[in-house]
Amino acid sequence: MTDAPSPRTQVRRHPERAAYDRGAIDAILDDALICHLAWVTPDGFPRIVPTIHVRVGDTLYVHGSEASRTLRALGSGAQVCVEATLIDGLVLARSTPLHSMNYRSVVVYGSARDVADPGERDLAQRALVEHVIPGRTAEVRMPTDKELKETAILAIGLDESSAKIRTGPPKDPDEDLALDVWAGVLPVRMTAGEPEPSPDLGPDIGVPAYVTGYRRSGRGVTA
Amino acid sequence: MTDAPSPRTQVRRHPERAAYDRGAIDAILDDALICHLAWVTPDGFPRIVPTIHVRVGDTLYVHGSEASRTLRALGSGAQVCVEATLIDGLVLARSTPLHSMNYRSVVVYGSARDVADPGERDLAQRALVEHVIPGRTAEVRMPTDKELKETAILAIGLDESSAKIRTGPPKDPDEDLALDVWAGVLPVRMTAGEPEPSPDLGPDIGVPAYVTGYRRSGRGVTA
Repeated sequence: MTDAPSPRTQVRRHPERAAYDRGAIDAILDDALICHLAWVTPDGFPRIVPTIHVRVGDTLYVHGSEASRTLRALGSGAQVCVEATLIDGLVLARSTPLHSMNYRSVVVYGSARDVADPGERDLAQRALVEHVIPGRTAEVRMPTDKELKETAILAIGLDESSAKIRTGPPKDPDEDLALDVWAGVLPVRMTAGEPEPSPDLGPDIGVPAYVTGYRRSGRGVTA
Repeated sequence: MTDAPSPRTQVRRHPERAAYDRGAIDAILDDALICHLAWVTPDGFPRIVPTIHVRVGDTLYVHGSEASRTLRALGSGAQVCVEATLIDGLVLARSTPLHSMNYRSVVVYGSARDVADPGERDLAQRALVEHVIPGRTAEVRMPTDKELKETAILAIGLDESSAKIRTGPPKDPDEDLALDVWAGVLPVRMTAGEPEPSPDLGPDIGVPAYVTGYRRSGRGVTA
């Protein structure tokens, strides 16, 4: 196992769940549909928004649901924290305090950079759509210059990141094993349902294979 | 529609998605399995942890995966921000910038209070388990005094909270409607799989109905 890249990325609670290698970190970021982005407001308060993200190499791009003004203000080097969490199961122990969840999470710390270069903006906005729906950008209209300008995209390096992963059954102490109560894991996962065509869609346009066969690489979403 | 309870809870981007009534806020908090908790570290950096939560009346209780020391430090009145997000669908528009997600999210701002009263601690820890697996606490061992002391529970009032909800198909402009590309929504939801008994479980203990029939009140998790 590699070491934590910084004190704040070191997993202190349940260190056995930590993963500091980029393979584990990348797999979670790639699988998670969304992440949560936090920053400190000018008056010193914490703030979070859920946002779509994509990892491209060593860079995490996020695309906020927040007004561009807020995101662009962050883009001048503000410190941000990004968390992506996937829930894989509910862990039912024989006592309330040992109940848990199986999960995979990543935290990234870094300073945010507003993506201004047109080429990088184009790459990032395509990658953001491909992260959510692989295959989609080959078919759809690309943004106009005006639309591209309206989109705020932030980049955060992955140098300071770590993962935390829990798997497996509950860990009841020996003295609880005789209790007459079911113990185990109830797996949960995100699944895709039946595609719902837009009411304004022409009748001769079929559902593409990347929609009917939608699934993420990991456990994130299955058809 | 009620008004936002404070400037920072007011939804500025896509205000038509805002909901400020407690009915909408409570439903999302009750449906979401986990939330994300953010705060500002003593050196001024933003930090997030995913955490299990439960709403009891007007109070949100969170139970961190973080070391108790950190959570208890917050409990002396630190300002926190909590976000819970449920993804309901992928919204496939005819152009990349109009791609979106259908989601329900809640943000809560407030100062955290460390729950110290034994009666409230007992109530909150039971409610946290019941939030994840309704019916569970009737069967399992309750915490010992030692275990209860080791658990950090924070309370946050819901006075300053708001919801944001997107539903429905993509909103393509008229000039995109003739494009030869599928548009619509791919619904996604969390589903429960087959229960996995603990390897140390006796063969005569069956899976309880609250596990085999697991589903959340809303769209959060279905069997």
